Amino acid sequence: MTSNSSPPALLRVLASEVLDPPPVWLMRQAGRYLPEYRSLRAKSGGFLEFCYSPAAAAEATLQPVLRFGFDAAILFSDILVVADGLGAKVAFREGEGPVLEPVSAKGLARLSVARVREHLAPVYETVARVRSALDRGRALIGFAGAPWTVACYMAEGGGSRDFSMPKAWMWRDPKSFGALIDLLVEATVQHLAAQIEAGADCVQLFDSWAGVLPDAEFRRYVIEPTARIVRGLKERHPGARVIGFPRGAGAMLNEYAREARVDAVGLDYTVPLAAGRSVQDHLPVQGNLDPILLLAGGTAMQARIREIRRAFSAKPHIFNLGHGILPNTPLEHVAALVAAVRAKP
Amino acid sequence: MTSNSSPPALLRVLASEVLDPPPVWLMRQAGRYLPEYRSLRAKSGGFLEFCYSPAAAAEATLQPVLRFGFDAAILFSDILVVADGLGAKVAFREGEGPVLEPVSAKGLARLSVARVREHLAPVYETVARVRSALDRGRALIGFAGAPWTVACYMAEGGGSRDFSMPKAWMWRDPKSFGALIDLLVEATVQHLAAQIEAGADCVQLFDSWAGVLPDAEFRRYVIEPTARIVRGLKERHPGARVIGFPRGAGAMLNEYAREARVDAVGLDYTVPLAAGRSVQDHLPVQGNLDPILLLAGGTAMQARIREIRRAFSAKPHIFNLGHGILPNTPLEHVAALVAAVRAKP
Repeated sequence: MTSNSSPPALLRVLASEVLDPPPVWLMRQAGRYLPEYRSLRAKSGGFLEFCYSPAAAAEATLQPVLRFGFDAAILFSDILVVADGLGAKVAFREGEGPVLEPVSAKGLARLSVARVREHLAPVYETVARVRSALDRGRALIGFAGAPWTVACYMAEGGGSRDFSMPKAWMWRDPKSFGALIDLLVEATVQHLAAQIEAGADCVQLFDSWAGVLPDAEFRRYVIEPTARIVRGLKERHPGARVIGFPRGAGAMLNEYAREARVDAVGLDYTVPLAAGRSVQDHLPVQGNLDPILLLAGGTAMQARIREIRRAFSAKPHIFNLGHGILPNTPLEHVAALVAAVRAKP
Repeated sequence: MTSNSSPPALLRVLASEVLDPPPVWLMRQAGRYLPEYRSLRAKSGGFLEFCYSPAAAAEATLQPVLRFGFDAAILFSDILVVADGLGAKVAFREGEGPVLEPVSAKGLARLSVARVREHLAPVYETVARVRSALDRGRALIGFAGAPWTVACYMAEGGGSRDFSMPKAWMWRDPKSFGALIDLLVEATVQHLAAQIEAGADCVQLFDSWAGVLPDAEFRRYVIEPTARIVRGLKERHPGARVIGFPRGAGAMLNEYAREARVDAVGLDYTVPLAAGRSVQDHLPVQGNLDPILLLAGGTAMQARIREIRRAFSAKPHIFNLGHGILPNTPLEHVAALVAAVRAKP
């Protein structure tokens, strides 16, 4: 359906075109559920080194597109590279997730936006390699973690159950917490602009922990920083397109869609189809199959894919999961998903 | 403001009266942040034994009311006692949370509703003791976990990060998963009815994991089972009042408020005040201060308490947290919260 000279389907939807079938890609599509990824990873060192190895990271980025023919590749990287670039020492321990030197108000002085682009040069090299290897009919998506989510990891020094460190910080000392957010906004603009310059066709901002904030703080630490990033990025690159993914936004989703200045909204799997349609009144949406339903497969998955397609077909829609694909997902379920999304309704 | 002969403030609000100041209690108010609780626990054995020791559990229930003068006591117990009563072997390991024998379709036959009341007799004895020790101006709240949440623990054999076991089960074999939910509905009705008979003034249904379901499954496994429990309980005890707490309901909150047949809705701390007010158009609400803001204390906490009171003051409101109090919460912050809720606006 797509001629060779027209832009990739994903970009056409971001420009408000309605496509049937919708373009499809999956969050975390480059990763551990793929045997070719596991074998590539086995040959390399630490996870962050892997992210900073352009040849390996480019190969990981392309693997799922080669296997499944997704409409987009998403850069293989991590949301914490910006924290690493700022000077928080990030490490990944096998099976434990990320570990960082926890940052507090006193530690802000040792973070520096100036070195982000230089430190993350291998990431942009990866983007350039992927863009030149990827056929022009497919989009290359760059990405970054949104400031609130990255700040959570930085304040906790890793993952968290209750987010008590970033929340206690933001409530006890909003000024210095705001300074951390400001640093992250600026670093994220730099990081996304560099990806666009290296050849990314659009970018996604992952706000994985958007769902743990009360309304006032959601506005201040999710919506406002996102809007500032989009504005900063478009000052440099007016044509850049940004997909925002405020996971768990719940009842704040519409306000995010109206105020965060993003070009499309990623819907997590808990977003009711009716609520997603009301976002579509403003913006293209992306989502939102539950990754456990992809893991389960079968008729339940098929039925839900049809339901999602039907619900969103009248307005711009990118088919995706509502959260990252799980490592134990069977490959044949992924192939079945792609076929079902592309089947005649 | 309350004469000795009028019902406790909390029950008056559940009967749709608007009170200023609103009654106040805190989820998990009986627990580890209290030194008197830690010393009581230190003298006893396993956690479940403690829950099944009427003298100790009654003392734990009363401790926070004695110290802070809350308007309600909530039974000291655990949402997994119903699973234990059904025959899933529940154990609590220090610092690890609950461990259960995982239940699957094949294991359903060994679960039995018939023994729930007998197995949980010590819980009802606790309720009776608390009710006779507690002054009549305060409400005693019984509780249970809602079926979806308890089923999550049973299917996983403990806590979970991604809920892949219950979700994969419900999607692969909805019939047997529905049978587990049916068992839990019946057992929960029994358990709540027994608490009402022993002297509980009202009950709360905790659906801690309501927020991880897509819309269709939220209707089927959160709203419908809750409605069946409320109906079953009121057939036995028409005057029983039920507070539903669908944590993380997000955009499904209004549908829950309209369809789940509960008498009041507990709002988690992510519910925007405007969304909470729209629930108040149908039903009394309870909530919703972020427990980390109670932990942080100070002017930010004071400001938010005033905001919550103002937002909900025109219609029936019970002041509470939007999730359980954290173990490291300073006692003086709790005292300050109670004073702020009862201060003249």
